[in-house]
Amino acid sequence: MESDFTPRVKLWVERNGLLVLSDYRVQLLQHVAETGSLAAAASRMRLSYRRAWGKIREIERNLGVPLVESEAGGPRGGRSRLTPEGERLVALYRRFQRAVEADLAREFEAIFGPRPTQR
Amino acid sequence: MESDFTPRVKLWVERNGLLVLSDYRVQLLQHVAETGSLAAAASRMRLSYRRAWGKIREIERNLGVPLVESEAGGPRGGRSRLTPEGERLVALYRRFQRAVEADLAREFEAIFGPRPTQR
Repeated sequence: MESDFTPRVKLWVERNGLLVLSDYRVQLLQHVAETGSLAAAASRMRLSYRRAWGKIREIERNLGVPLVESEAGGPRGGRSRLTPEGERLVALYRRFQRAVEADLAREFEAIFGPRPTQR
Repeated sequence: MESDFTPRVKLWVERNGLLVLSDYRVQLLQHVAETGSLAAAASRMRLSYRRAWGKIREIERNLGVPLVESEAGGPRGGRSRLTPEGERLVALYRRFQRAVEADLAREFEAIFGPRPTQR
C-alpha cells in the first residue's frame, strides 16, 4: 500500500469473554494519575463523575485489586490517586500498547510492502 | 495477569485519517469470495444488499482498485466474485491479522507475565 496508509489498532483485554481492560479504561486511569482528581479525569474523558467512578469500580471488581484511592472527605471532596497496583497496571498496559504498535507497523510494511494494491 | 485473561485486538487501516480498510470490511469481501454472491455475503453480515454494495464501492474508491466483479445480468441477478486484486488484498490482510495476533499474545505474556496484578 502507499506510504500514506496507516495501520491502526484498538486493544482490550477480556476475561472469560468479558471486557476487563481497554485503551479507554487505561486512559481514564492515566488521567486520574495526571490530574490527582477523579472529577478532572472524568471531565477530560467527557464522562460524568458518576460514570467515571462506576467504570473504575468495575475495573477494580473485574481485576480484583484496588486501582484508585481517595483522601478522607470522600472521593468527591478529596484528591484521588492511583494505588501502586494502579500505577503498575497503567505502566504495563502502556508498554503493551507501544510494543503492539511497533509490531503493527513492522508487520504491515513486511506484508503489504510498497503499493501492493495500486500501480 | 491470570492465564484466563485474553488480549484482543481490532485492526483497521487509515489513509489521511480516513478509514479505508478494516476487519469488518475484509470479512465482507471474504464472504463474497466464499459465497460467490454479494446478496449472500450481505446476509451473513446482517447488512442490506444496498449497504453491502455501498461498502464495497467505498473500499474500491478509497483504494483505487476494483475488488468485486459481477457477471452480466447486473450485480443483483448474477454471481459476484473477487477480482485478483480483491483476492490478494483479502489474503494479505488475513496474513496481517494473524501476524499481529501472534505478536499480541507474545507481547502480552512478555509484559504482563503470570498474575502481575493479582496475588
